[in-house]
Amino acid sequence: MSGSTFGELFRVTNFGESHGPAIGCVIDGCPPGMALSEADIQPELDRRRPGTSRHVTQRNEPDTVEILSGVYEGLTTGTPICLLIKNQDQRSKDYGNILDTFRPGHADYSYWRKYGLRDPRGGGRSSARLTAPMVGAGAVARKWLKEKYGCEFRGCMTQLGELEIPFEGWQHVANNPFFAANTSKIEELEAYMDALRKSGDSVGARIRVEATGVPVGLGEPLFDKLDADIAYALMGINAVKGVEIGAGFGVVAQRGSEHGDELTPLGFASNNSGGMLGGISTGQDIVASIAIKPTSSIRTPKASINRAGEVSSVETFGRHDPCVGIRATPIAEAMLALVLMDHALRHRAQCGDVVLPIEAIAAAAPGV
Amino acid sequence: MSGSTFGELFRVTNFGESHGPAIGCVIDGCPPGMALSEADIQPELDRRRPGTSRHVTQRNEPDTVEILSGVYEGLTTGTPICLLIKNQDQRSKDYGNILDTFRPGHADYSYWRKYGLRDPRGGGRSSARLTAPMVGAGAVARKWLKEKYGCEFRGCMTQLGELEIPFEGWQHVANNPFFAANTSKIEELEAYMDALRKSGDSVGARIRVEATGVPVGLGEPLFDKLDADIAYALMGINAVKGVEIGAGFGVVAQRGSEHGDELTPLGFASNNSGGMLGGISTGQDIVASIAIKPTSSIRTPKASINRAGEVSSVETFGRHDPCVGIRATPIAEAMLALVLMDHALRHRAQCGDVVLPIEAIAAAAPGV
Amino acid sequence: MSGSTFGELFRVTNFGESHGPAIGCVIDGCPPGMALSEADIQPELDRRRPGTSRHVTQRNEPDTVEILSGVYEGLTTGTPICLLIKNQDQRSKDYGNILDTFRPGHADYSYWRKYGLRDPRGGGRSSARLTAPMVGAGAVARKWLKEKYGCEFRGCMTQLGELEIPFEGWQHVANNPFFAANTSKIEELEAYMDALRKSGDSVGARIRVEATGVPVGLGEPLFDKLDADIAYALMGINAVKGVEIGAGFGVVAQRGSEHGDELTPLGFASNNSGGMLGGISTGQDIVASIAIKPTSSIRTPKASINRAGEVSSVETFGRHDPCVGIRATPIAEAMLALVLMDHALRHRAQCGDVVLPIEAIAAAAPGV
Amino acid sequence: MSGSTFGELFRVTNFGESHGPAIGCVIDGCPPGMALSEADIQPELDRRRPGTSRHVTQRNEPDTVEILSGVYEGLTTGTPICLLIKNQDQRSKDYGNILDTFRPGHADYSYWRKYGLRDPRGGGRSSARLTAPMVGAGAVARKWLKEKYGCEFRGCMTQLGELEIPFEGWQHVANNPFFAANTSKIEELEAYMDALRKSGDSVGARIRVEATGVPVGLGEPLFDKLDADIAYALMGINAVKGVEIGAGFGVVAQRGSEHGDELTPLGFASNNSGGMLGGISTGQDIVASIAIKPTSSIRTPKASINRAGEVSSVETFGRHDPCVGIRATPIAEAMLALVLMDHALRHRAQCGDVVLPIEAIAAAAPGV
Repeated sequence: MSGSTFGELFRVTNFGESHGPAIGCVIDGCPPGMALSEADIQPELDRRRPGTSRHVTQRNEPDTVEILSGVYEGLTTGTPICLLIKNQDQRSKDYGNILDTFRPGHADYSYWRKYGLRDPRGGGRSSARLTAPMVGAGAVARKWLKEKYGCEFRGCMTQLGELEIPFEGWQHVANNPFFAANTSKIEELEAYMDALRKSGDSVGARIRVEATGVPVGLGEPLFDKLDADIAYALMGINAVKGVEIGAGFGVVAQRGSEHGDELTPLGFASNNSGGMLGGISTGQDIVASIAIKPTSSIRTPKASINRAGEVSSVETFGRHDPCVGIRATPIAEAMLALVLMDHALRHRAQCGDVVLPIEAIAAAAPGV
Repeated sequence: MSGSTFGELFRVTNFGESHGPAIGCVIDGCPPGMALSEADIQPELDRRRPGTSRHVTQRNEPDTVEILSGVYEGLTTGTPICLLIKNQDQRSKDYGNILDTFRPGHADYSYWRKYGLRDPRGGGRSSARLTAPMVGAGAVARKWLKEKYGCEFRGCMTQLGELEIPFEGWQHVANNPFFAANTSKIEELEAYMDALRKSGDSVGARIRVEATGVPVGLGEPLFDKLDADIAYALMGINAVKGVEIGAGFGVVAQRGSEHGDELTPLGFASNNSGGMLGGISTGQDIVASIAIKPTSSIRTPKASINRAGEVSSVETFGRHDPCVGIRATPIAEAMLALVLMDHALRHRAQCGDVVLPIEAIAAAAPGV
Repeated sequence: MSGSTFGELFRVTNFGESHGPAIGCVIDGCPPGMALSEADIQPELDRRRPGTSRHVTQRNEPDTVEILSGVYEGLTTGTPICLLIKNQDQRSKDYGNILDTFRPGHADYSYWRKYGLRDPRGGGRSSARLTAPMVGAGAVARKWLKEKYGCEFRGCMTQLGELEIPFEGWQHVANNPFFAANTSKIEELEAYMDALRKSGDSVGARIRVEATGVPVGLGEPLFDKLDADIAYALMGINAVKGVEIGAGFGVVAQRGSEHGDELTPLGFASNNSGGMLGGISTGQDIVASIAIKPTSSIRTPKASINRAGEVSSVETFGRHDPCVGIRATPIAEAMLALVLMDHALRHRAQCGDVVLPIEAIAAAAPGV
Repeated sequence: MSGSTFGELFRVTNFGESHGPAIGCVIDGCPPGMALSEADIQPELDRRRPGTSRHVTQRNEPDTVEILSGVYEGLTTGTPICLLIKNQDQRSKDYGNILDTFRPGHADYSYWRKYGLRDPRGGGRSSARLTAPMVGAGAVARKWLKEKYGCEFRGCMTQLGELEIPFEGWQHVANNPFFAANTSKIEELEAYMDALRKSGDSVGARIRVEATGVPVGLGEPLFDKLDADIAYALMGINAVKGVEIGAGFGVVAQRGSEHGDELTPLGFASNNSGGMLGGISTGQDIVASIAIKPTSSIRTPKASINRAGEVSSVETFGRHDPCVGIRATPIAEAMLALVLMDHALRHRAQCGDVVLPIEAIAAAAPGV
């Protein structure tokens, strides 16, 4: 109820603080009998981890994951899987100068008012570092969804600050530090980030995530619509201020005659819906976009108050990402995977194991 | 788990279908001792109900609410409040012609694949009619939040199709059929809708909702962030395809030096955050916007397939809103109220009854 | 969270008060496609309803159930099933004399202290009348479990006051007003109850319930053990003060060499476990017993205090069961069915639709 | 949903296996600002840990607890508290001989059928070793309840096999290896256990637990009655087969005139109810008893089958408690504390921080 558990049937309980001894999570509800080892999880953590390019925070965390329970002789047992990631490069002293003052745009103020105390070590629990265990849990979900349904996840940055990043191909995403599905514009992005860093400022970004091979019928009719749960999962990622499904805010100016995706014997003719109708998956690709705000911890001084309510000024010198959006792609993929995993199990509970396999409408329709 | 219950501590369980005998909800967890009668709830239902202008569906439903339990001698008892709304103007035959064919953009197809059957009566459970009980439950939440904290809710349409609606003042919202905070542009909107209706098409809209007098400290740190739960609640409203908090998608091109709302002894100097930092309310106004897609049920024919997978064509003749966004404002207000109500109780559970009252930062800071 | 919802995946939300306009429940999570009508539910309600013999309360309630939603053309749709039972024979004035005084053994006092107010109409929400909707929901669960797995439920009274009731055969249960699996001792029970009623007193009872044809593997390892959930369900029935599984309190004096049920190629050789090992069903019959306290509302005067804390005396004249245990058998069966239904769906979610069918160990073992 | 989380608002998620690298739990929802360190938790773990007398298993586990998160500068922060206990004395080879055969009375069989695999290391997840993290979490709950309300917990063994243990005084409990509230009968118990161990058999026990200083008003009316949740918590402890509240199974033969606890201006005159009426606490002591079955792992050979369904025989040679009931007292106290903690927070959520303090009815009544 205090919001550290994600999911209903594939439940991930997250713990730890950015600068405590360790972070981690407990996954309850994983189906038994799936082959699982650290090697299935580490690659996803490596995609998210800090210090991999000059454009992200230089905190050096290997983010090595350890499975403490729930796997026996290489197979999941159906009981809780505890993932542990020890923190290595804490530097609480970096935060000494902001102990008493509230950083604009940061959770300092709201945490202090809610709990009556402050854990200033790297933002404590409000740090984006707590997404690491979710990326780990997401890797478990991804493995099961891929083996069971052929469902896969991918994402890319589509805008950095005012620079739009044209989509050129998914194969480019792994070849640049921005998760851009693009190769021609990378130099411009590098120069942009270099200038930004030099200026001591930060910037926002837009990320798109997709799921392919999605079973038909996932999602509940009224409140736990698949799109509602995706919005919940993505808006819950640090710094996200907007979520779109399919055509997103573009629908405001659309006509019904244009928006509704026509069905043909060969499948849907378009995907304005983003893969869901009435909150339930159609078997098309799930498509969502998020807006990520600029990092609040910047070197540029800003006006604020201190705990006594007096005028103060803040500039932050710790190690921070100048664009938190850069590392957000694997996080958003993981959260999307966790939502689909949970709904896959929910579907099985009520409707039985009839979640339809990855099939084109074309193939399914004749026989249905 | 099948998604008919909203909230964790102020739990609203919704039931009914658009064309069944009745719709309603059961509210569990309402604090005891609050004065409550149908008269507190009916006005909100009247704002949402159909048939109030020529621009919305002509289905004639009085939406009269009846309290079946949970109130004794005019006071809530702390036990479940059942709200019942009898359907009056069902016309299942209106839907006869679409029994076998899937309407593009509509939940027909996904429901059929999920459950293996169809309830075509007005979309059955996927109908926006099921928001009525939520507006009723929202009225209960609004009453408690107002009496306890002075918290209030308001909303308006900010765009209809390609027409932006400039904000002129909240007092205008009740004086036009569009929930526009505007008086100068109403004629243009009327003409726009008349033309649209004549064309047999539909259109999208953008709605803004706000909460004022919000206690500080509502929301949980990791997953049940207040903004994540608002995104969940609003994205779950029928036809919503995008949700923004505060500056929303505008943050993508913002700099950190611009985005972070500075604190002064007199309060925050701006509200890019939309009233939350780290997912926890700051005491500023909560501000969110949603994008609503055009109605899928239109007279304009569209290509589709039937249950046998054969090519077909659909045009819908029932009574439908040409812009579902028009009646969405009171719904979005209600859902926002339900989220805040739930978090107010959650906050009490963990942190005690110290949810800070409606106070300016200015007033609070010196004494804190 | 306020305790009006039972179950996790087959969720039953109960509402209403004993002397309000109606009672009922909303069932969310029922699998789609099951034939269901009021005729499937009414017989179970008839077994529980008051006024059927001189040994139970003379309140005259037909307990006619109405399905308001979730069924279309005779089949469950997968969406919430609302069951409504209108109260017919309320007589709030019966309770006038106890408005200000607390009945010993009754929830008057604790409700008043919890909520700060009293609804004295028949105990309001604390009345055993609220079990009626659960019996209704149980009938839905029983139907699904029987059709899917051949699982069935039965129960009987095994002791009334100090009179033990020897088990003679399940076929007798329907032929006497006590739900006794006995025919030779009925006259004695009748005489016992007649004398008790005349004396203005009440008495306790012991009830046994069983499930047969139970799938193997239901229940969770740690907290939601099947036996823990059965204990929760049965202890939650009004007036229950003890729950036993299998050998129950008899295990205290047993040796391990005696208790552990041996396995043979033809099945288990005994059932001390009551059908569960480690909280997970074994496929044997589930067996549980409950102790039900004597009714608190009696004509015999008892000492008490009033709301001002002054000495007072209470005798109750409303219509009450002199032994609430008499009508408890169908209630306990229903609650047991609801627990198994919920766990059947939970099992499907995590382990797939491999809940093993009703099979003897004998049949299963060779092929496993 | 897979049953590894206990509680709704004070949520404890348990992980680990008896012979894996570590066991532990994550506590979410602990109120912020409470002083907490390992020193508050370790003493309770020491009461439960194995190897402390010759009458319990000789497995040597220090059960040293480590707080990984949720505490900063000695105070709880309101975020998840992860407790880690590393296993030290695993000896998986002890279990080699039972890999293929099912031990009568043990969860071997049901786990294998549920999950399709076996983790034979000390019963894996079904081991009573998993109660250690709950005792740790219980210590956190106990501290808060004591500081906030003066609420305390205690328990004792009241029967060992066929030997009843007369209650002489709570002060004796800490002075013997049986948690007996007795000093005169200890020698007899020692001799009894010595003979039992020699015989290679095991025996059951009866335990009583109590809470004192309980706030009035805890518990929900219908399903989450305080007694129902206590039954759930206690029946969920390994090997428990029966739960009684207050007069327990004794109520079957009681008259209403005898059972109902009379109220006087000086408080209740008796406590047949065990401290709850209508499922809600009255402020009297909470009293519950449990029946614990004899340990299933014994040296005495028993008939069984193997995975091929063939006749087999089992005798267990690992290190086991000859009476698991001996170490059950601190476990039962912890589970009772976790139930009350959860309900204390639930009460605050709905009714505000008015949970009445530890007061005699006598003191409260005049002013109420």
